[in-house]
Amino acid sequence: MKMTVGIALVGCGTVGGATALLLQEQRDSIRFRTGVDLDLRYIVDKNLTYARKLGLSESILTESLEKALSDSKVSVVIELVGGTGFAKTLILQAFAAGKHVVTANKALLAYHGPELFAAAKKAEVALAFEASCGGGIPIVRAFYDGLTANTIDAVYGIVNGTCNHILSEMIQKDSTYDEALKGAQAAGFAEADPSLDVNGGDSAHKIAIMGAMAFGSPIPLDTIPVKGIANLEAEDVLFGGEMGYVVKLIASAVRGKKGVFVRVEPAFIPMDHPLAWVSGSFNAISVYGSAVGHTMYYGRGAGGTPTASAVVSDIISLGLGTYPVQFKSMDFWNPDKKPLKLQEPGDIHRRYYLKLRVLDRPGNLGRITTVLGENAISVSSILQHEIPEATDGEVLENTPPEAGVIEPTVPIVITTHRVKESQLLSAIEDIEALEDVYPGTTVLPILEEHPEFRYLNT
Amino acid sequence: MKMTVGIALVGCGTVGGATALLLQEQRDSIRFRTGVDLDLRYIVDKNLTYARKLGLSESILTESLEKALSDSKVSVVIELVGGTGFAKTLILQAFAAGKHVVTANKALLAYHGPELFAAAKKAEVALAFEASCGGGIPIVRAFYDGLTANTIDAVYGIVNGTCNHILSEMIQKDSTYDEALKGAQAAGFAEADPSLDVNGGDSAHKIAIMGAMAFGSPIPLDTIPVKGIANLEAEDVLFGGEMGYVVKLIASAVRGKKGVFVRVEPAFIPMDHPLAWVSGSFNAISVYGSAVGHTMYYGRGAGGTPTASAVVSDIISLGLGTYPVQFKSMDFWNPDKKPLKLQEPGDIHRRYYLKLRVLDRPGNLGRITTVLGENAISVSSILQHEIPEATDGEVLENTPPEAGVIEPTVPIVITTHRVKESQLLSAIEDIEALEDVYPGTTVLPILEEHPEFRYLNT
Repeated sequence: MKMTVGIALVGCGTVGGATALLLQEQRDSIRFRTGVDLDLRYIVDKNLTYARKLGLSESILTESLEKALSDSKVSVVIELVGGTGFAKTLILQAFAAGKHVVTANKALLAYHGPELFAAAKKAEVALAFEASCGGGIPIVRAFYDGLTANTIDAVYGIVNGTCNHILSEMIQKDSTYDEALKGAQAAGFAEADPSLDVNGGDSAHKIAIMGAMAFGSPIPLDTIPVKGIANLEAEDVLFGGEMGYVVKLIASAVRGKKGVFVRVEPAFIPMDHPLAWVSGSFNAISVYGSAVGHTMYYGRGAGGTPTASAVVSDIISLGLGTYPVQFKSMDFWNPDKKPLKLQEPGDIHRRYYLKLRVLDRPGNLGRITTVLGENAISVSSILQHEIPEATDGEVLENTPPEAGVIEPTVPIVITTHRVKESQLLSAIEDIEALEDVYPGTTVLPILEEHPEFRYLNT
Repeated sequence: MKMTVGIALVGCGTVGGATALLLQEQRDSIRFRTGVDLDLRYIVDKNLTYARKLGLSESILTESLEKALSDSKVSVVIELVGGTGFAKTLILQAFAAGKHVVTANKALLAYHGPELFAAAKKAEVALAFEASCGGGIPIVRAFYDGLTANTIDAVYGIVNGTCNHILSEMIQKDSTYDEALKGAQAAGFAEADPSLDVNGGDSAHKIAIMGAMAFGSPIPLDTIPVKGIANLEAEDVLFGGEMGYVVKLIASAVRGKKGVFVRVEPAFIPMDHPLAWVSGSFNAISVYGSAVGHTMYYGRGAGGTPTASAVVSDIISLGLGTYPVQFKSMDFWNPDKKPLKLQEPGDIHRRYYLKLRVLDRPGNLGRITTVLGENAISVSSILQHEIPEATDGEVLENTPPEAGVIEPTVPIVITTHRVKESQLLSAIEDIEALEDVYPGTTVLPILEEHPEFRYLNT
């Protein structure tokens, strides 16, 4: 059994270059192991400097997408251009030319997944996207193949290596966010413009994809509450650590009684939580299935060859003919389907970490806990530190009033038992209305490990 | 697209019962999500008491395998009988009747994988075995699908939940092996006869399967060095812990320069090693691929519904028609292939933990380190504890000679730098020949995290 797959690779940057090299280096090995012969016929890019620098064969380099698409021997087009403009056009062109497409483009899928799926199905070709979530981790396959016997209860992912690298540095080296970001940029773990990573946008793309696969319907990107890590204070990382928590940027999609909660947010998790040890630029995704319980998938979520690993495994599955069948059975991005019913974000119940900024005057702690009590919020722990340093303005004690702020605020850290988020936020409004409490309370959820086997009991 | 799969389930014990229930409960959901309708037509067992206790429909219960195999509507037979006798016969019968087979039977595959593969291929049916390694974790799929773009460098697994539960108890509660085993039996995590688990045999079955998939050729079970956990001393767990290590039963298959090392053994791993946090009855398997680097897969390695999750996902893949194609492309258990070339066990290079039992007399430490030096073994650390309690016989200091042993031995713990195992074992022979050194030195390997990207550099 030998099958030859003619390939056109479009976009020769970091991932494209690594994919081309992998296709070359592993061609014989892959043919030997799987029976599929991967014939890279074109590398298409407007700028071929990098392709030449890698020493890729001149005969397959071209600036002409048309040339590649019109070759009847090409059956798979790899889209590694990125972005949601030309990438989309070229994928639709490839479909129209009867080619399967492999992409690593999470943004494009998160925005236009249903439209692209419909176009592929109409053209009777397949769109493969293992590389779009979790880099080289075969997580997309877990949803469409490995865990098909399960109703999925929950997905929790650390899916942005840049953020995880920055947070790991903050945790391990007591760095501020700005210091850690600069370090990440110097080490090549963060882009010069890191905004899409650190603002949580990239994680939102991935949870939009994984959540749709897990729960069977499209999740419009604009319905996902997203909070990034740029405002995270070193002090909170420290205080959380003292209480046995580490902070991670968590993208989650969790089935609740009345719908699904999907969000991206920095959250505290206990140090013995299965995601707590995931450090540096690695990714990990926990999936809770009704039958299998907790499963977790770990690996490099970005980078040239890890992403190329996912891209090439998709091409092999297309060559074997297995993925086209699996793709046909995928219905979660059917544009005729109603988007997934998401719960009101405020309806979520969980524990929280609060850091209030309060003037250090007698009675304040009592007044605050009274407001919490009136709002039926049960306190788990309270921690008032001695003032490490002034936190509001250039504050010195015993300076005269005319010098500006004359009293420092102290951080009061409170952890709650499980509480409805809307109830908590309303209580914080009441607390911040107290005379000695400053605005800008830090609110971070505390995620306990998700319970297994919520639905099936055997 | 709707496909109906007629199923005969043979062997209704813990996993069989859970599989039957899962097939019932998830039938509509699976048909809706995948287009495959799973029609459980027969539950075959000589003793149907448990099936009746679960309330499974009387109309599908039968003692007659022949009845099930002769039904032309049955296309998939699930073998959950266990063992290597009747299970093998029934699988061959099922193949002869033109049925695909799904099995969770690691022992059978480890002993007879090549023969069963050949029989399936001859009958033009498929043998699916996701449930044979790592329970519900989709690890078998990682090898035949998710990581196909990679040459596999190494596999390290914690693949026996009973052992991992016992070791976790020893670590966390300072228990002895016997105490932890009894606790595991009481909690249902160990069988009344736990020998196949604790002697490493079950782990050997799984690494024989995963190693063959990873490296492309059969691994005869009797070529794998196997050491279990039954002789592990609480003292070593404690001493290792003091040095920052945890002990795990590790099944590994690692590509070396001249061949592959495959073994099962208790080993120390650093506390920040990616497998160190895997506690209790969970399993985890690390796979290092040439392109993807380190990936890891975690979940429940045993138990009714987790294993059923893997079994049912295999049936769905058979129903879709994807697995038969993937099975055809699998060649690692081709009986015409030479078994995998394994390196001489003694050729392996790594770090070691030694605990010597030595009479507490002046000069002994010097004599021991001299022997190590003469054998070109470089010492990383030495730890001589004050005697916690007598370790050899009922020893009391200052008792008269006629009372028996009059001097206690002290445990001297030495960790080495990387050394060839055969060289180390020969040095230990020399050391145990010294006058004051007792036999029975504890030797445990220290496994550092495997390096990523040994072969491909981009």
